[in-house]
Amino acid sequence: MSILVVGSVAFDTLKTPFGERKKILGGAATYFSLSASFFTDVRVVGIVGDDFTSEHEAVLTNRGIDTRGIEHASGKTFHWGGEYGDNVNEAETKFTDLNVFENFAPKIPDAYQDSEILFLANIQPELQLDVRRKMPRVALVGGDTMNLWINIKRAELLETLKEVDILLINDTEAKLLTSEHSLVLAARKILTLGPKSLVIKHGEYGATIFFSDGSHPFRAPALPIAEVHDPTGAGDTFAGGFMGYIASQPELTPTVLKRAMFYGGVMGSFTVERFGPERLISLTRDEIEERFRLFRSLTHLD
Amino acid sequence: MSILVVGSVAFDTLKTPFGERKKILGGAATYFSLSASFFTDVRVVGIVGDDFTSEHEAVLTNRGIDTRGIEHASGKTFHWGGEYGDNVNEAETKFTDLNVFENFAPKIPDAYQDSEILFLANIQPELQLDVRRKMPRVALVGGDTMNLWINIKRAELLETLKEVDILLINDTEAKLLTSEHSLVLAARKILTLGPKSLVIKHGEYGATIFFSDGSHPFRAPALPIAEVHDPTGAGDTFAGGFMGYIASQPELTPTVLKRAMFYGGVMGSFTVERFGPERLISLTRDEIEERFRLFRSLTHLD
Repeated sequence: MSILVVGSVAFDTLKTPFGERKKILGGAATYFSLSASFFTDVRVVGIVGDDFTSEHEAVLTNRGIDTRGIEHASGKTFHWGGEYGDNVNEAETKFTDLNVFENFAPKIPDAYQDSEILFLANIQPELQLDVRRKMPRVALVGGDTMNLWINIKRAELLETLKEVDILLINDTEAKLLTSEHSLVLAARKILTLGPKSLVIKHGEYGATIFFSDGSHPFRAPALPIAEVHDPTGAGDTFAGGFMGYIASQPELTPTVLKRAMFYGGVMGSFTVERFGPERLISLTRDEIEERFRLFRSLTHLD
Repeated sequence: MSILVVGSVAFDTLKTPFGERKKILGGAATYFSLSASFFTDVRVVGIVGDDFTSEHEAVLTNRGIDTRGIEHASGKTFHWGGEYGDNVNEAETKFTDLNVFENFAPKIPDAYQDSEILFLANIQPELQLDVRRKMPRVALVGGDTMNLWINIKRAELLETLKEVDILLINDTEAKLLTSEHSLVLAARKILTLGPKSLVIKHGEYGATIFFSDGSHPFRAPALPIAEVHDPTGAGDTFAGGFMGYIASQPELTPTVLKRAMFYGGVMGSFTVERFGPERLISLTRDEIEERFRLFRSLTHLD
């Protein structure tokens, strides 16, 4: 099944304890689509400026990603600057130049209407809802959000969540969204808001999926990594592996969801090994399967 | 195989969002021995005061724990007061009355010399080392420590670690001990200090065991719990389940260590359900096995 992802295609200027990079390819939709492209067909809807060259676009098209939905506007591409200290879980934002992204009004090519799965990466909730409504035929909707929207667009976000089947957020976002201190209570509340499944990402501790039908949650590990060179995009990469694996399977069973959790963690573990999407670009499917086996040995008793 | 544990037998006065308890039975050796008693024979070396009644001691002896090593001194028993807010991972200490524990000089009954496993719960490193040297015939030594000793008794702790086979500590302690921000790098350093295996406990995210022989780490989950009523003793209970299961097995294989990680998590998950050791006192082996299966389903793909 093919996936349509809507979200940011951006440039990042980054500093971590392992080095720095200026204006490298980034954005949630970039990480998501590169990651998902190892599993299924991916189409991207986003917006870029004049400074987004054919070489940048080739990073996506070389992986077979359909970029016809990336609008080229006049102006500059969204550019984020951030720095990570010794605690790689927390980025300090240095600047956020929205540029052409500020007036992003997602346009979905007709050729994308047959996408079976839709992923609403972290953009304004109204835009997410707009896109979701423009894709009435999709069979499954995944989504992400962030603290900013939970704080300033809560009502809009709650409307959007009604139409999201699988929500992927992190611990802080889950607690903020529900005003709960317990992740389990937070998960229970969120599962009354629309999503049938909820993936809460715990950073270096892995991720847990909770279900609205009352079945037991499932925990996937993260790889214990000695040196995280750049955590940027790890969450979007997780989402890409997770949704991509689901798209590659004929049916959405509990077993598929569990394996999707593992593939999400596997893909995220590659991204943080190098800067930006460097590692995803050089990755092979064999390496993915080898690491999947490592994840299994990390958690399975026999 | 039988386990000898040396550590605090104490009273706790606790407040959590779910209620409060005054002067209930607590202490690392108490939680450890109750937990381990579901798997093997346990002997305790500790010290208590006049206020420690035969009813308190019966909580241990009713579970078959050998308490001949608990010294009854004149004075009061170690008494800790603490309060937990909404973040159950952090206790605020209200008071620490060491009382008879201040001059604790562990005395090991001759009858305990045939113990095969020794667990050095969190006491001063010099006392840990003293006990370890008084038990030359033990086959395996497990140990715990805390931030206080890492800060003020580092040299003594490093001496003790040389004689500990399996160290069990939490994230914060591992980072503090090594001045590393990465858990993996912290683990690698600690595994050059003496321990052949290192269990790092991540609280609600489970625990990871690292090995000095270079084999892959292994992660055990914690149960996603909606309401932690009282986290006191969870770490010591984990250690009791972990060491207790090891003691119950004929050989220390990688498979045994992995299963021990699961039993540690299982036992910890019971303790936090109620105040103090209440839940451990009413627990049955069937409940333990049922929860072990739940832990498996929480992490295993098939």
